[in-house]
Amino acid sequence: MIIVLKPGIVRKQETTILNEIRKRGYTPHVMRGVARIVIGAIGDELTHQSLETLAMAFPEIVESVTPVQKRYKLVSREGHPQDSTIDVRGNIIGGKKFQVMAGPCSVETEDQLLRTADAVRAAGATILRGGAFKPRTSPYEFQGLGQKGLKLLAKARRQTGLAIITELLSENHAEMVAEYADILQIGARNAQNFQLLIAAAKTGKPVLLKRGLSMKIEEWLLAGEYVLAHENPNLMFCERGIRTFETYTRNTLDLAAIPIIKNESHCPIVIDPSQGAGRADLVKSLCKGAVSMGADALLIEVHPNPAEAWSDGAQQVSIENFGQLMQELRPLIAAAGRE
Amino acid sequence: MIIVLKPGIVRKQETTILNEIRKRGYTPHVMRGVARIVIGAIGDELTHQSLETLAMAFPEIVESVTPVQKRYKLVSREGHPQDSTIDVRGNIIGGKKFQVMAGPCSVETEDQLLRTADAVRAAGATILRGGAFKPRTSPYEFQGLGQKGLKLLAKARRQTGLAIITELLSENHAEMVAEYADILQIGARNAQNFQLLIAAAKTGKPVLLKRGLSMKIEEWLLAGEYVLAHENPNLMFCERGIRTFETYTRNTLDLAAIPIIKNESHCPIVIDPSQGAGRADLVKSLCKGAVSMGADALLIEVHPNPAEAWSDGAQQVSIENFGQLMQELRPLIAAAGRE
Amino acid sequence: MIIVLKPGIVRKQETTILNEIRKRGYTPHVMRGVARIVIGAIGDELTHQSLETLAMAFPEIVESVTPVQKRYKLVSREGHPQDSTIDVRGNIIGGKKFQVMAGPCSVETEDQLLRTADAVRAAGATILRGGAFKPRTSPYEFQGLGQKGLKLLAKARRQTGLAIITELLSENHAEMVAEYADILQIGARNAQNFQLLIAAAKTGKPVLLKRGLSMKIEEWLLAGEYVLAHENPNLMFCERGIRTFETYTRNTLDLAAIPIIKNESHCPIVIDPSQGAGRADLVKSLCKGAVSMGADALLIEVHPNPAEAWSDGAQQVSIENFGQLMQELRPLIAAAGRE
Amino acid sequence: MIIVLKPGIVRKQETTILNEIRKRGYTPHVMRGVARIVIGAIGDELTHQSLETLAMAFPEIVESVTPVQKRYKLVSREGHPQDSTIDVRGNIIGGKKFQVMAGPCSVETEDQLLRTADAVRAAGATILRGGAFKPRTSPYEFQGLGQKGLKLLAKARRQTGLAIITELLSENHAEMVAEYADILQIGARNAQNFQLLIAAAKTGKPVLLKRGLSMKIEEWLLAGEYVLAHENPNLMFCERGIRTFETYTRNTLDLAAIPIIKNESHCPIVIDPSQGAGRADLVKSLCKGAVSMGADALLIEVHPNPAEAWSDGAQQVSIENFGQLMQELRPLIAAAGRE
Repeated sequence: MIIVLKPGIVRKQETTILNEIRKRGYTPHVMRGVARIVIGAIGDELTHQSLETLAMAFPEIVESVTPVQKRYKLVSREGHPQDSTIDVRGNIIGGKKFQVMAGPCSVETEDQLLRTADAVRAAGATILRGGAFKPRTSPYEFQGLGQKGLKLLAKARRQTGLAIITELLSENHAEMVAEYADILQIGARNAQNFQLLIAAAKTGKPVLLKRGLSMKIEEWLLAGEYVLAHENPNLMFCERGIRTFETYTRNTLDLAAIPIIKNESHCPIVIDPSQGAGRADLVKSLCKGAVSMGADALLIEVHPNPAEAWSDGAQQVSIENFGQLMQELRPLIAAAGRE
Repeated sequence: MIIVLKPGIVRKQETTILNEIRKRGYTPHVMRGVARIVIGAIGDELTHQSLETLAMAFPEIVESVTPVQKRYKLVSREGHPQDSTIDVRGNIIGGKKFQVMAGPCSVETEDQLLRTADAVRAAGATILRGGAFKPRTSPYEFQGLGQKGLKLLAKARRQTGLAIITELLSENHAEMVAEYADILQIGARNAQNFQLLIAAAKTGKPVLLKRGLSMKIEEWLLAGEYVLAHENPNLMFCERGIRTFETYTRNTLDLAAIPIIKNESHCPIVIDPSQGAGRADLVKSLCKGAVSMGADALLIEVHPNPAEAWSDGAQQVSIENFGQLMQELRPLIAAAGRE
Repeated sequence: MIIVLKPGIVRKQETTILNEIRKRGYTPHVMRGVARIVIGAIGDELTHQSLETLAMAFPEIVESVTPVQKRYKLVSREGHPQDSTIDVRGNIIGGKKFQVMAGPCSVETEDQLLRTADAVRAAGATILRGGAFKPRTSPYEFQGLGQKGLKLLAKARRQTGLAIITELLSENHAEMVAEYADILQIGARNAQNFQLLIAAAKTGKPVLLKRGLSMKIEEWLLAGEYVLAHENPNLMFCERGIRTFETYTRNTLDLAAIPIIKNESHCPIVIDPSQGAGRADLVKSLCKGAVSMGADALLIEVHPNPAEAWSDGAQQVSIENFGQLMQELRPLIAAAGRE
Repeated sequence: MIIVLKPGIVRKQETTILNEIRKRGYTPHVMRGVARIVIGAIGDELTHQSLETLAMAFPEIVESVTPVQKRYKLVSREGHPQDSTIDVRGNIIGGKKFQVMAGPCSVETEDQLLRTADAVRAAGATILRGGAFKPRTSPYEFQGLGQKGLKLLAKARRQTGLAIITELLSENHAEMVAEYADILQIGARNAQNFQLLIAAAKTGKPVLLKRGLSMKIEEWLLAGEYVLAHENPNLMFCERGIRTFETYTRNTLDLAAIPIIKNESHCPIVIDPSQGAGRADLVKSLCKGAVSMGADALLIEVHPNPAEAWSDGAQQVSIENFGQLMQELRPLIAAAGRE
C-alpha cells in the first residue's frame, strides 16, 4: 500500500501513522518528496488488513491510501498465462473454433423452440440459448415457463445435438437447472448476487457470467473470482452492454471489454449484441465488430417471429436475418484467425 | 400506446399496422399530422400484449411506439394518495416522527456492537443497523458473522430496546433472518434480484429496498412492486447513491429521489449517506440535506473505531461524531416539520 | 405532439388544455383511452412553439407531452438518402476507399512531425493529424505551438502530399487555422460550443465533429446541424468515446455509433480509438472493430517516441506498431468491402 | 509519482526504469514489496514532465504510475485556508449573507423582464439572472435577444437595484457582455472551453463557472484554475446537475458538491436547482437541501408565465411559487447560520 501524507506534517504525526502501519503487520518505508511525504507499506495486501481506513481515521494527516496489488488471482492471466478453454459437449469455447450461441430470449412453446433450434443449427450455431426463468423488471410481465421450459430445452438438445445455455435465477434452482443445462448463465442483474454465483459454481457446470449494468471491469473479474474460488474452473465472461446516459440504444456495448478481458484474464470472452443494443437492427454490425476484435463466442437472440415474442421482441432477430448474419460473419471469422 | 409511423407511408402499409394493432386487442385511432401519421391504440396496456415489437417487426413503416400508462400500480401514489406508514416496534416510519437507523457496517464482536448500540440510542437513534451477512466485491474479504451476528443483534435489541435492521443476502436465509430482524434490508447489488425480493416479502417483515447502482426511478418502483404484489405492504425505499463517472465520492447520492419518491409513491423514503458518499467526512452535510428535503429516516454507519472496522471503515462515522451530528440535525428536523 | 392527460380529468380541465393547444397553433385531436385521455396536437413542430411547457403549467391535468417529429433535418438520412462524400485533396471520405488519418497528438518539433508524417504515409495513411492548439484540462500543461505548429503541418503537407487535419479551439483562430488545414477538427470539449461550430462552418473547410463526452446521439446530430445550417455540407462525425463509470479505459468507445450514424445520417463516420481508449495497447483491437463495423475512416495518434510525448503519451502508438496495425487491417478492410 | 512494477521483474529491467526516471529529473527511491517493486520518484510534479508515459513505453515492466500531488493550486484551500468572498454591487457572495440570484431563463421582452425583476426583488433576491445569448441544442431554437437583451438587463438593474448575472457564450462578446453584467456566467457546455474562460477572466468581472455535464470535481477545479491563473480572483463554482442514466430528471443534481467544494477550495459554491432537475416541481425541495448543506447562493429560474416561456419553460417557477419558496427557505437559512 502507498500512503500519501498531507503537506506540512510534523514528526509526531508521521510517527503516529508509522505505528498504525506496523500495528497492521506492514513494514513502513518512508520517502520524503518535494511537496509531501509518501510511505510504502510493505506486506501482502491479500492477507493483511487494508490500510485504507487510515485516511478516514487520521484525516488531518493522511491524504490518500492506494493498494498496489491486484485483488483478483484465480481469474488473472498473471498466474495462468495460457488461454483457458471450456468443453461444452465437444464444442470448445476459447479455442481455435469460434462458437455461436443462439436462440429465443424466452422459451415460449415447443414449436417456437424447435423451429428456432433447427434453424440456428442449420445456420452454424452450436449452442442453443433460451430462458426458462426470466428476470423481468415488472412483476406483471411474463416470468418464463420454469421447469417446463427446461424440459423443452432438453428435448431440443436431443433433437438437434445443440448444447444448451439457460439462465439461473435462484439459488434454489441451481441443481434443477444444472440437470438440464450445459452452461449456466448468470444474468446482468445478478452479476453481484454472490450467493447465486457460489451456487452456480458448485454445480460443476460451466458458468457464463454477464457483466452487470454498472460493473467495472475489476468488479466483474472479482465476481468471476467467486466461481473459480469455489473450484469451478469453467468460467466465461459475457459483455452485454453497460448502462450510460445514451438512450438511442438500451445499453452501450463496451466492445473494448474483449481485449481487456484477454489482457487481464485467461477465461474466454463472449459478446451478447442483442442485450447490448436492445435493437435487432444493430445486431449484425455489433457481431462483426466482436468477431474482428477477438471474441471467443457470440450469444444472439433469434426468434421465428420477433413481433410476437413474449419478451424483448425488439432485440430478437428473425431466422432469416440470422442465417444471413452467419453468412456475412464467415469471412471475418477467417480474417480473425478462427474457424 | 402511441404508434408513430415514418414519413411517406402508403395506405397499404397503414392498413398492415392497423390490423396488427387490432390483432393484439387494441382499437386503433388514426391521426394524420403534418409530417407523420400517429396512431393511438386504445386498450389496457397492463393486460394486453405490448405493441413495442411493431417497431422492429415493421421497421420500414413504424418509427416509434410509446406506452401511455405507468407500469407500476401498488406502489403508486395515484391509487393510494395518503402516505403509508410502517410500525417497527412502535417506531413509526413515514409519519410525523423522523427516525434514525444507525450502527456498524458489519457486526464484528459483542463489545463493538453493544457499545455502538448504547451510544446510538443515547444520541437518539431508534433502530440499530448491522450486517451479519455481507455482500463483498471480493471473495477474499470478510463476509459477515452469519447467524452468530444475528444473535448479537438480538442481544443488542434486548439490552437497548432498539429495533433491528439487517441485510438479507440469500433466499435460503429469509426465514432465519426474519426471525431476528425487525426490518429486512435488500442491498443495492440485489435490488433486481426478484427471487430475493419475493422471499423477503413473504416473511411479512417490513422491507427496506435500496436503489440499485444504476437503477432508474421507474425500475426501482417496479422492484418495490414485487414486494407489494406479494402481499407485504410494509415497503420503504432507500436511496444510497448511484454510480456515475465521478470518482471523488464512491457513489453520487441522488437527493432528488426524496421529492420524486414522495410524488410517485406513498411508501416512505430513507436516505443512506454513508454508502452514498463512501466518505465519513461528507455524511453530516448529506444528512442535513436529506432532512430538509423531506426524508422519513436516515440510515447511518457508526463504528466505535472506524480505522479498525472490518469492512468499509472509510465511510463509518465515530460515536463522537454521530452524537454531534444528531445535535446539529435537531433544528433542521424541526424546520422540516418533524419531531 | 402527443399530450397525455392524468387519470380522472373532468371535462372543464380537458377544455382548458384544448384551448391552450389551439392558442399555440395546433389542431387538437382527442382519443379517450381505457385509463387516460390522449390528445394528438397536429401542426408542424419545427415551426410552432413547443407544447412541452403545458406539463408544468398544468401539472394537475397534464401527465406528459412528447414530440413526434425528429428535430434535425439537414444531417438526416430521411431527406438525403445517399451517403455524402467529402473530397479532401483528392482523398474521398465516405466513399469506397477507407481512409486513415494519423499523426501525433501535438505538433512538438519539426523533426518529430516530419518523421511521423513520412512514416504514416509509408504505412498507408492519407491524412496527417497533429494538434497546434491543444485544449488541456490544466492551465499548467503544454497548450500547443500555435501558428508555428500550423506552419510545420503545412511543411509536412508539402513534403509528403498528406492532407492536414488539426483542431480549431477558438472562434478567433478560424480563419488562420483554415488557411493551413484541410479539415477542421472540433474537439469533444467544444462539441456544443455552437459559436465555434458556426465559425468553423463559415470557413468552408470540411469539419470533423467529435462527439462530446456525454453527448447523446440526438444532440450530436443537432450539433452537426449547426454546420450544415451554415451552408457547409462537408461534415463528418467522429466517435471518440463517451464518459462512463468505467475507469480501466479513459473513455468508453461506443462503436455502435457507426451503424447508428449510418442509419440516421448521410454524413461519414470516423472513429478515434486513441482518445476512445486512452491506452495504446487497446488501439489495434478497436481499429479492427471499427473497420468491420463500417466506419469510413480512422483517426489514430502516432508518435515516434510515445514515452517522451509532450501530451497524452499513454494513448499514442509508436511508428512500428502503426505499421503493423495497418498491415493487420488490410484483410478486414477488404472483408468490409472497402479499398 | 509512484511507479509500480509488474511481478517477476529482473534487475536489468529495473535499471532501465530507474534511468528513465532520472532522465526526467526525478530521484528514484526503490521499495521491494512482497509481490512487487514500487518506486517513488521524488521531484516536483508540477514542473517536471509526467512519468505516466512510462507505463506505455515499457508495458512489460511497468504496471501503473500514480501522481502524488494535486494538480490545482490557486483554487485550492490548501494554499488559501480562508473562504473567499466576492462583492457584487455590495452583495457579498461567500460571506454571512445567503444570496439568491433569480430571473428568467431568457430575456424575452421588457415587460417580462421588469415584472420578474420587481417580483424577485420583492421576494428577497439580490441578483437578477437572464440569458441574452442562449446556447441551444438545436439551431432552430430561440438563440436569445443578444445585445438588446443586455440593454434590458441594464434597464432592470437601474430600476430595481438588482445586480445582473448573464451568460457569456463567445470570446468575441466578452467585452460587450462585461459592460452590462456584474457577473459573467460560463455555461455547462462551455465549462471546458478554456479560451472562453480566459476571455471571461480577463474582463475582471466575477465569473460563475457551471459544472460541465460530465465533469469530474477535479476537472472543474482545474477549469476554475484557468480563471485564477489569469489574475481574476473572483471565481464562484455553480453545480447544476450532471448527466447520468436517470431520465426522470433532466440531470442529477450532485448536492455533495457543496461540502466537496468547501473542502477543496476557498471559492464560493452556488446551486442551480432549475437546470439540476429540469422540472419546476422539484426546485423547492432541492433549494432546501442546498441551503441546509451550506451553499453560498442559489440560481433559480423564475418566469411570470412559465407555460409561455420562449425556452426551458418546464424548469422555470412562477412568480407566486418563487415568493412562497423564499418564505419557506427563511428558517432553513437561519438554521444554517446565514442571514
